[in-house]
Amino acid sequence: MGLELYLDLLSQPCRAVYIFAKKNNIPFELRTVELLKGQHHSDAFAQVNPLRKVPALKDGEFTLAESVAILLYLSRKYKAPDHWYPEDLQARARVDEYLSWQHTALRSSCTRAMWQKMMFPVFLGERVPPETLASTLAELDSCLQLLEDKFLKDQDFLIGPHISVADLVAITELMHPLHLGPSSHSPSAPAAKSSKADPNWLPGTTV
Amino acid sequence: MGLELYLDLLSQPCRAVYIFAKKNNIPFELRTVELLKGQHHSDAFAQVNPLRKVPALKDGEFTLAESVAILLYLSRKYKAPDHWYPEDLQARARVDEYLSWQHTALRSSCTRAMWQKMMFPVFLGERVPPETLASTLAELDSCLQLLEDKFLKDQDFLIGPHISVADLVAITELMHPLHLGPSSHSPSAPAAKSSKADPNWLPGTTV
Repeated sequence: MGLELYLDLLSQPCRAVYIFAKKNNIPFELRTVELLKGQHHSDAFAQVNPLRKVPALKDGEFTLAESVAILLYLSRKYKAPDHWYPEDLQARARVDEYLSWQHTALRSSCTRAMWQKMMFPVFLGERVPPETLASTLAELDSCLQLLEDKFLKDQDFLIGPHISVADLVAITELMHPLHLGPSSHSPSAPAAKSSKADPNWLPGTTV
Repeated sequence: MGLELYLDLLSQPCRAVYIFAKKNNIPFELRTVELLKGQHHSDAFAQVNPLRKVPALKDGEFTLAESVAILLYLSRKYKAPDHWYPEDLQARARVDEYLSWQHTALRSSCTRAMWQKMMFPVFLGERVPPETLASTLAELDSCLQLLEDKFLKDQDFLIGPHISVADLVAITELMHPLHLGPSSHSPSAPAAKSSKADPNWLPGTTV
């Protein structure tokens, strides 16, 4: 069995891995794991990734979790063009810096904002306190400002003139709320239907 | 000017960088940034790291943030022994997988547990709701179980028989609560002194 990628394209990190593999003509079997059906909780999937998150990779007997690790593994194994993960010491460090930063910054903020602004009120009918949402959006603004000031600056891409895996990770995150359509920006929210809503809780299904 | 490392050894990621540099006989100038004095907020430090967090690295005109990126930069530039960040494709992927996972798992859980169990009640006199603390500790238990089941298994180190940068990142995190002494495990907590306590807030000063 060749390379298998376990993905749900609803997930931002899955889309980054998918785009990278397609763009670099890496042959793989797509194994769809439907998050909305809870397929990531199945015992079969846990054999591939005990963390029960997508994306996951299986290459023969070797299995790998975490989108950042998968992107780097694919770039090395399939010798992707240098710009994706440059050999140059400082350029590579700059990619590593972004890939590390985004976990607890942009990814965390974008995900929280989408759940509080869209998923809780629209899909779950759970009210998010306005001050919680305001705080989350302020944090997201701060992250976006750092993304521009610290990383992008006046460059074409995050690391310089060429695209790298950092850009894929960033753009899939930034684009995520947009495909939900304009209703994601609706100011109205249904009243709380139960006390289960915890706006600090976020489903950790994708990495 | 040679290599400068901006650290506060109160911080777990700073200790991982410090231990790595010392163990590998990497010559550097230690620039102490005292978090408790707020020195990471100074304009001078923002020139080194606009994210205003430690650790940070300055190597001539090149500056770098994020402990994971710094560890990998040092291991490449100073050609650290292979076991720290193995050339082998699968072993390296395993290190990358851990370094990616820990951001939102062990590091997040350990930090939150320490603040809720120790810093808020003991140092700030802020009460943390018991159910919040219980939830945090349950999440930490879950992370520790994954650390054993998924990563460590029956190996001597996280990636196999030899120590890697993943182990440094893990051990500095796991050891962090211990140096606070037995009082960190005290079940008693002062009554709330103000409404400012937000147990979901955590100071993001170190990465």
